[in-house]
Formats: sequence, C-alpha cells, structure tokens
Amino acid sequence: MSLVVQKFGGTSVGDINRLQAVAERVVSQKNKWDQMVVVVSAMGGETDRLIDMAGVLSQNPQKREMDLLLTSGERISSSLLSIAINSLGFPSISLTGGQAGIMTDGEHLRARVRTIRPDRILKELDSGRIVVAAGFQGVDEFNEETTLGRGGSDLTAVALAAALKADLCEIYTDVDGVYTADPRIVEKAVCLKEISFDEMMEMAVLGAKVLQPRAVDLAAKYKLPLIVRSSFGEGEGTLIKMEDDFLEAPAVSGVNCDKKQSKLTVLNVPDEPGIASKLFGKLAEHSIMIDMIVQNVGEKGLADISITVNRDFAEDAESIIDGLKSEFGKIEIIRNDEIAKVSVVGIGMKSQAGVAARVFSALSGSDINILMISTSEISISVIIDTKYSENAVKLLHKEFIE
Amino acid sequence: MSLVVQKFGGTSVGDINRLQAVAERVVSQKNKWDQMVVVVSAMGGETDRLIDMAGVLSQNPQKREMDLLLTSGERISSSLLSIAINSLGFPSISLTGGQAGIMTDGEHLRARVRTIRPDRILKELDSGRIVVAAGFQGVDEFNEETTLGRGGSDLTAVALAAALKADLCEIYTDVDGVYTADPRIVEKAVCLKEISFDEMMEMAVLGAKVLQPRAVDLAAKYKLPLIVRSSFGEGEGTLIKMEDDFLEAPAVSGVNCDKKQSKLTVLNVPDEPGIASKLFGKLAEHSIMIDMIVQNVGEKGLADISITVNRDFAEDAESIIDGLKSEFGKIEIIRNDEIAKVSVVGIGMKSQAGVAARVFSALSGSDINILMISTSEISISVIIDTKYSENAVKLLHKEFIE
Repeated sequence: MSLVVQKFGGTSVGDINRLQAVAERVVSQKNKWDQMVVVVSAMGGETDRLIDMAGVLSQNPQKREMDLLLTSGERISSSLLSIAINSLGFPSISLTGGQAGIMTDGEHLRARVRTIRPDRILKELDSGRIVVAAGFQGVDEFNEETTLGRGGSDLTAVALAAALKADLCEIYTDVDGVYTADPRIVEKAVCLKEISFDEMMEMAVLGAKVLQPRAVDLAAKYKLPLIVRSSFGEGEGTLIKMEDDFLEAPAVSGVNCDKKQSKLTVLNVPDEPGIASKLFGKLAEHSIMIDMIVQNVGEKGLADISITVNRDFAEDAESIIDGLKSEFGKIEIIRNDEIAKVSVVGIGMKSQAGVAARVFSALSGSDINILMISTSEISISVIIDTKYSENAVKLLHKEFIE
Repeated sequence: MSLVVQKFGGTSVGDINRLQAVAERVVSQKNKWDQMVVVVSAMGGETDRLIDMAGVLSQNPQKREMDLLLTSGERISSSLLSIAINSLGFPSISLTGGQAGIMTDGEHLRARVRTIRPDRILKELDSGRIVVAAGFQGVDEFNEETTLGRGGSDLTAVALAAALKADLCEIYTDVDGVYTADPRIVEKAVCLKEISFDEMMEMAVLGAKVLQPRAVDLAAKYKLPLIVRSSFGEGEGTLIKMEDDFLEAPAVSGVNCDKKQSKLTVLNVPDEPGIASKLFGKLAEHSIMIDMIVQNVGEKGLADISITVNRDFAEDAESIIDGLKSEFGKIEIIRNDEIAKVSVVGIGMKSQAGVAARVFSALSGSDINILMISTSEISISVIIDTKYSENAVKLLHKEFIE
C-alpha cells in the first residue's frame, strides 16, 4: 500500500477557484497512490480577517479564544475541499485536527504536537476515502482547541506522514521549490533538485520561508522524504532527504539573506561570572530569541557584548537590557536596525576546507565590511549593513554556485 | 442563584459593531443575574456565504461536510463575543456545541438534541464566567459535528435553559416581540405583552418567524418562561408562559398569514381503502410535509383530494403524484401556487363559541372566497387567493383585536 500526505498552503487555496484546482490536482494523482491524505491551510487572507476582527474587539484577546476562532479557518477550507473532491467522483471526508488525532499540549497559539492518534484517519483511508485534514490545529487532553503557530500546517502534514508511515510528504506552495538564492535578487539562482535535511533546516532557520523549521526537524527525525513543489506549475520541486543518500555534495547549496535582524551592542559590561547569564536569563524570561552572540573582553575588566535578534523583538530587548542599568553600572546600549544576515549553507562544507576564507575574500573584494560572524557545521553567516546585502548574496552565489 | 440564558440571532451580531453592542448589553445585565449563558448565531450573512461557496464546488455537497463547514459560523461569532465580553472586564469563555454538551443524533443538517451534558458549562459558570455557547450545533455520539436546522440557535438556547434549570430564557431578535399581526400589513397591530405556549406554537408553525417551533415546544414541556425581545431597542418584549397563568384570554391573540403555500388537487382518485394511504405514504417517503388535507367523495366512487404544502415542495409533490398515474387510473392534478393561508390564533377560542362563524362572515362580507379550511383547538386557518391575503389579515385583525 502506497501512502502520500500532501499539504496545500493558503495561497494554493486562495479562493474558491483555486480550491477547485487543488481538488482536481489531488484526484489526478489518485492513480499513483493507494491512499492519500491532504492537509490544508485556511483560505488565503481568512486567518488575517479573523485576527483583524478580534483586534477590533480587544487589545489583548484571550489566547484560548483566539485558537477557537482561528481553527475555523482550516475547518472551512478542509470541508470545502472535501466537498470539491467528492463532487469530482472520489469519496472523501474532511477531519478536524481533533478528529485527525492531532494531540497537543495546552499552549494556546503555539502548541506542540505530543502524539498522533491515527485510528480515525486509518479507518477512513481503509474505507477508500481521500482524507482531508485541517492543518495548523489540534486538541489538548481536555478537548480544548489549539493551534500550532505560523506555518503550523507544514507540521501537521509531516506529523501525520510520520505517524502514518507515509512513503512521501509533499508540500505544495507558491514557489517551485528550494532555490540556491532568492531568484528576485540573483538572476542565475536555480531550483535545487535535492537538498539534505540539515541544509534545509539551516536554511529554514536562516529565513528561507519555504518550510517551517519544526516540520523539517520532525521529518528528519523520522527520515521522511519531503518534497517542496509548486501547486500552480508542474515542476518536480525539491526533494529533501537524508544526508547519507548524497554521494558527493557541493560545498555550498544555497545563499540566504535575512533582513529582519537587529543588532544590539552592550558596552562596558562588568566581566564577572554570572553577569552574562543574568543578561541572557532576563531576555529568555521575556521569550526573546537571540540569534548571534559575540563577546569581547576589553580593558579594565569591562566587556562588550553584541547580540542579534529578530527586528520584531528589538525594541523589547533594548528596554529589558535598559532595565538592568542599575545593576550593571554604566553600561551603554547601541541598537542597529540597518543590518542583514547573509548565509551560505551546504553539507559539503564538512569535508571541504577554506569555505570561510572564500566567503571573506569574496565580500572584502567588494569592500563589504563584516560586523559579526557565526558558523555551524554546515553554514557560515555574516552580519553586514543592509545596503550591501543584495550585492553580497550575488557575490556569494557567483563564488560558490554559478 | 439566578440564571438566565440569552440568545442573540444573526442580525443582532450582523457585524463587528453590533457584536460589540451585544457584549455591552450582556454585561450591563450582569448585576441582575448571578449566572449568564449567552447563545449566539453566526454573524449575519456568514452562513449564506459558506453555503454559496459549497454550492460553487458541488451541486450536492455531503450533508456531513456541510455540517462541519456551517458550524464554523457560530464558532467564529461565539469566540469573538467572548473576546469582546472579556475586553469589557467580565470573565467569559466560549464553548462549541460539543464543549457545551449539546448531544444530538447523527442526522446531519437537521439533527435532534438527544441530551445535554452540562458539566462543563456548570463548571465555567461556577468559576464566575459568562459562558458564550455556539448556537445551532452539537455533536453526535461519534464526536461528529451536527447542526439543528434553520432557527437551531433558538433550540440551543431553550435546551440549555431547560438543562440548567434557568429562571428565564430570553430570545433577542430584530423585532420587538410577538405582534397581533404583521405590522407591515396591519397598521394597528400591537406587540403582545404575553402569550401562551400553545398560541405561540400555533403561530410559529403557522408562519410567524419569531421563534422556531421546536424551541417553543421544548420550552412548554419544561414550563420555561421565554421572552422574545429586540436586541436593538429597550422594549419589554413578549413573555411566553403557561396557559394556566392567564386569568381570562381574548378569543384571538393574533392573525397570521403564510404566503408560501401551494395547493394540489388530485381529481378522480378511486375511493377504495388503501388508496389515500398510498398517496400520502409516497409523499412522506420523499419527506414532503403536508399541511392541510381535504377529501370529497363525489359520484361513481371517485374522490377529489386537495392538499397544501410549502411552495418549495410543490413541484416535487406534483411529480411524485404524477408518478402514481399508472396505478391510480385517470387521476388529474391541478396545482395552484397563488394561494395564502390566513389564520387566527387564541386560547380564548376554547371557551368562546362562534369564532369560526365570525371569521367566515368577516371574509365573505368582503367577497373573499374560502378555498379550504382547517381548525385546531385554538386556531382557525383558511386558504384563500393570494391577492386577498393582506385584506383578509386586516379584516380579521379589525374583527377580533382592534
């Protein structure tokens, strides 16, 4: 028995005509698969419409009520898609998150999937139906509705595919697949035929918005083959698979750029044990995710600490650090919103030396000043002025990929 | 502990501003009641929007999928109302039909309430919250979503009020209450201060669209005081209560008119045992509700049978009867869509003779021909040409009420 899980995002079901097109695409593949599960997001704009209405009524709506409100979006799109598939002559049933057995913790608006109870889905598949599951949603142990956060439908698809031991999980989206760089910036960027989970994970975290990082992580854990492809065209898309399956990989598979970054530099921090941990502890308390950290110890036992955060959190982070002034003495805070993070990613880096040196020389050859650096096993990221970011992406793409 | 159940219909929550107004009205009464349950319909137009979308995708959408689709409407309005009430400083929680314990049978699109499991509502009320329950919906024993048919939110309100032993159930709508006749037709029509359940039931069935008949029936069974009032004005509305509580009632409390009727006359039906039952059995098989029946046995053992049905079913009924031609011999069918049913209703009729005679003389005095007649203990209905219907209502209102 072959089983596929396909996920269609909000733009793929943007209106009733596109939803009809998705139904046709699904049934056109029924001859290829014995069993099909389709995960669907809310129709394009619906989630924002619901959030806006709540915003008119309250500055601070209850998270629990927001979840009940937002889950309606996927209930609507999934039942409509099931109606469309049935109408094409293929038996189909739509299931809510709870009915599909998506069991989560009780953290409203950002629940984590605890387990999948696939009994109902299996029963419906065995009776020959195409199952349409509402993405983005689950229920907790008290039967309260929860949502999985932005991009949560990707997670629904991967979690169901893992639980059902699917042969393949296909993510249909509005781009052809994973590109070596943003094609709007780099003319010669190409769609990758395949990429490893580790690379995809780095790229997802580094700002490529094709896939939700938690979904990639989960797929890797279950060694679940994942394809990202366009719901509009007929392209093959990008296959994301285990690293072991690559014979020889290029040093760099992709170049990313994340412009939504801010840099905060704290000057004159006393270089004593416990000080840094207090600083980062306070930021963590307020759920502020820190990306890069660089610390320089200068003269007189005072250190400078630079961090980068997502720009949405920059103001909060600044005022939290500001609140530590009384404790930390004469610290000074410099905030810079005009920065971007440019990264090269590739599993080939593991076995090829000199990638970092090539990154630095490519950038310095064009007088692009590097403000911060961070590296992982398979990626190198640099913080530079925003104004240089597009040029940097072009230079690195040319250096490593073209 | 005093407990009220209030229900707000679709026009009362027609848009986000009206929904805000409903929230303000609810909390303004919190000082009058220890505990409040608010039942809410989908926002005006939302249900039709969902039905229209399904209609684009399928000529004949699955009832089960339609229920999943439609229940979203009340989930949205109830969570938004709860957000608005919370924002006004009053703790509130919204509950779906399933969470509110509305257990139904599995008849999608027209489910019947089997029982109420009020544990969750009671828990929330005891913790001091205003409970907002999604109207119109429930779940069956397999946790499948169901809806209760048009006007189902009235039924939700009454069923919850009965199960919770509420002191009062208030139905907020877009009219001031129950009128002696349609004020758009009869200038002197007045809003009734009170009316008995039996009268309300007759009027609801006879076409006054203020309350769903099943809801009235259920309220009567539990002797639950029911008020119909406007969600816009400040009027007292109409109290519906047990007949025993009326000292002396007028013969006629109201005059109704239902223009959505069709009359089918079947000529030359063999007057033999079993023939009529076969005719009505066939119609019942197709779920066609028959209102009035008149049978005349003529010469040669042939009978004429006239029935009235809701106009929506007239065409179906005609073709079903037409299909019996081979069995019934030379029957002939005459269909008339240009008829209306005008009724007078009043519990006083039980003890006052001559009401029927006054109806006939009032109409015949204006040369209005009566095509069919039917009576119950507390009502008299006549079928007349549509063109006379408004005049007939005026005449009868003048005769009995003014």
